[in-house]
Amino acid sequence: MQVVLNYLESRQQQFVEELREYVSHPSVSAQSDHRADMQRCADWLAAHCRDLGLQVRVHDTPGHPIVVARTPRRRGRRHFLVYGHYDVQPPEPLELWSTPPFQPQIRAGALYGRGASDNKGQHWAHLKAVEAYLRTGTELPCDLTFLIEGEEEVGSVSLESFLHRHRKELACEAVVVSDTGLPARDLPALTYALRGIAAFELVIHGPDRDLHSGIFGGSVHNPAVVLCQLLGRVHDSRGRVTIPGFYNEVEPLTAGERQQLRRLPFSERAYRKLLGVPALFGEAGYTPNEQRMARPTFEINGLTSGYQGEGSKTIIPAWARAKVTMRLVPRQRPATILRRVRAFFRKHCPRSVRMEFIPGHGCAPYRLDPAHPWARAARSALERAFGRKPVLMREGGSIPIVIRFKEILRAETLLLGLALPDDNAHSPNEKFDLEVFARGQRMSAWLWQELAR
Amino acid sequence: MQVVLNYLESRQQQFVEELREYVSHPSVSAQSDHRADMQRCADWLAAHCRDLGLQVRVHDTPGHPIVVARTPRRRGRRHFLVYGHYDVQPPEPLELWSTPPFQPQIRAGALYGRGASDNKGQHWAHLKAVEAYLRTGTELPCDLTFLIEGEEEVGSVSLESFLHRHRKELACEAVVVSDTGLPARDLPALTYALRGIAAFELVIHGPDRDLHSGIFGGSVHNPAVVLCQLLGRVHDSRGRVTIPGFYNEVEPLTAGERQQLRRLPFSERAYRKLLGVPALFGEAGYTPNEQRMARPTFEINGLTSGYQGEGSKTIIPAWARAKVTMRLVPRQRPATILRRVRAFFRKHCPRSVRMEFIPGHGCAPYRLDPAHPWARAARSALERAFGRKPVLMREGGSIPIVIRFKEILRAETLLLGLALPDDNAHSPNEKFDLEVFARGQRMSAWLWQELAR
Repeated sequence: MQVVLNYLESRQQQFVEELREYVSHPSVSAQSDHRADMQRCADWLAAHCRDLGLQVRVHDTPGHPIVVARTPRRRGRRHFLVYGHYDVQPPEPLELWSTPPFQPQIRAGALYGRGASDNKGQHWAHLKAVEAYLRTGTELPCDLTFLIEGEEEVGSVSLESFLHRHRKELACEAVVVSDTGLPARDLPALTYALRGIAAFELVIHGPDRDLHSGIFGGSVHNPAVVLCQLLGRVHDSRGRVTIPGFYNEVEPLTAGERQQLRRLPFSERAYRKLLGVPALFGEAGYTPNEQRMARPTFEINGLTSGYQGEGSKTIIPAWARAKVTMRLVPRQRPATILRRVRAFFRKHCPRSVRMEFIPGHGCAPYRLDPAHPWARAARSALERAFGRKPVLMREGGSIPIVIRFKEILRAETLLLGLALPDDNAHSPNEKFDLEVFARGQRMSAWLWQELAR
Repeated sequence: MQVVLNYLESRQQQFVEELREYVSHPSVSAQSDHRADMQRCADWLAAHCRDLGLQVRVHDTPGHPIVVARTPRRRGRRHFLVYGHYDVQPPEPLELWSTPPFQPQIRAGALYGRGASDNKGQHWAHLKAVEAYLRTGTELPCDLTFLIEGEEEVGSVSLESFLHRHRKELACEAVVVSDTGLPARDLPALTYALRGIAAFELVIHGPDRDLHSGIFGGSVHNPAVVLCQLLGRVHDSRGRVTIPGFYNEVEPLTAGERQQLRRLPFSERAYRKLLGVPALFGEAGYTPNEQRMARPTFEINGLTSGYQGEGSKTIIPAWARAKVTMRLVPRQRPATILRRVRAFFRKHCPRSVRMEFIPGHGCAPYRLDPAHPWARAARSALERAFGRKPVLMREGGSIPIVIRFKEILRAETLLLGLALPDDNAHSPNEKFDLEVFARGQRMSAWLWQELAR
């Protein structure tokens, strides 16, 4: 192992230069004028993997290519999948970037550029760990397949059918994903649970056209008023969701889990400042970290009704619409929750309007027992690389692909995030910390040892 | 009088042709590419009035011209003002018109075209009554001034300062305005009260930018949720506004007033169908006509927050905004009501968000005692022209200019509307009923007699 670690240590500058080149590809999956850039980025990645001695294929899809790179197979070794994505979020608004998003620059120990942290830098750490094994002639203790897709930022549209078609080739013990966060540069984390999601739109239809509020107002129910009344009763004053059955399947947090979450560095004042709010607010009885990582939510994402322009327009709008997503926690099921929400609104919606409930996408929550053998292996690797016991944390967001790995490949996922909280993923001035990059490489090098045991 | 009435009867075809030419002017005050059309329309109107023997001036304003046409003055006669407007609503959406809005056509006893009913046809009836006096050499029993503006549909911006500047010339006993409605072709109406209005915007500011609902959701108050909670508590289940003091100054409807409103033809089924709603809803204890004419309301005119496009976006929006207008009834004052509304929201708004309350335009309600001498005169004229006792009704809308006449000219206003409920004012296929047109002329001819007594 020392050879591998020495190799990594000696090549940091080169790795950063490679990553800089990787990040310079404007691989924006959402924007069709970057289609050629997507192909170029996939080809560049494939060529790099081939140079390292991996067996590489670039698979065309109806969307953007998927790159699959395998270490040479050895009989009797366990097989693990490393998942990542080379596509990035749109960089707009460009005027908020200190340096151009696709001309990556190093400042204060970090590489700045769109995709540096999400996700190019993170899977680059794993790739460099494997390079260290291959280039030093050290035997890799397991077989590995890198699965790097190009549609993560647009919903991984092609990946599901790809997983089905390549189920045999991709069959593995577990999937390793570094696409989440760690609390601080020196505090590694294993993310063992993800929130799920259930989306819907609620539309209240009133009169069949916008009505003059002077001529008709008072004698007809205003759909915007009804929408506000329905949505206004979803939460009580303590931040609890009042929809019957909403919490039925929620697993209570154990004392151990709460203790782990308390290990996360947290200053209420700093957090408040980060969000720019006068005061925090959430479900009573839970800390902000518990609220955002381990408790379900009901969030209005958008409201639309009537006149939204300058000045005023004296109408009773014909309709009012809300876009809602709920974050779900382990054991809550999107379909069940959506059913209860619809029943709640049906019950309270007056018959003077017509209610339309449009279910949207859903994704189950995820949980891997932190005492599971793969989780234990990951915790050891993190501790070795960072010199500190990793915190066991949860992620408030949803990663649908983790659910697909479970359903299609029957494999659990190890979430070993390398993004710092201030990495500005999806925002201007995205960066990737170079110290975390180096530690991530060491973590990966150790991980294959631990997983092979 | 019979000479005057005979003249009117014999000239109907000519009057309709003139009105058709008047309506063919696309005098859309809101659209700047119709600026020249506005001037042409004002000039055409002025020339027509001059032909009748009126003393005419076209006054330039910062906006569109105001046409003032006076009958020759006779010492000792009372002076009344006839107000109207030659500007019209934009005709869009054009594809919904059966015939082009500015190529007026006669169908089934009505003239179809933008502005036919609102307001060209209505003041044309008064002008033709005056023509009958002048052309038959019958002495007009009072002095009249026609004040026809070109900015009614854009807020009568120039009129207020015009009234101030021409206060002496326009000083009058009362103002006659035909710009409201009558319930049916054979049921004339005196509108003796108008609702006022008070507008505001309520903005709830949450985080200083849209936040990822997965990463942060649960620990920060969603401003769209808070907005819905605040607005959702404004009405109780019986349709009453719960804001303390909202009804303090409201005058209860008298038995006589309610009896008059019951004279209005009303079919709940037909009304429901007209509005396209599954059921009516309004303040308990009042009929739909009472609710829309004589009771105050709180209407959300628009809601805006977060993501409104296709699909979903998982954010906690940075802010949420509602546009609200309240219709006020006699003795309610816009400033007082706005103060109470603001206090109500202040009290209930949690300190986890920042509330912004932006007062908008306001207009006092209006009421003229139906037993007032001018009101009695108008009721007589209506009865003579239509052969039926007019109903005493209220108008749910607001006509700010009526308040200006009262404040600046110290004159009451007689609202003698000639628009039928299905005239499609402000909508495609606007029309003006030709039978009502003829009766309106007779009503006007009688009115000067009655007012002169």
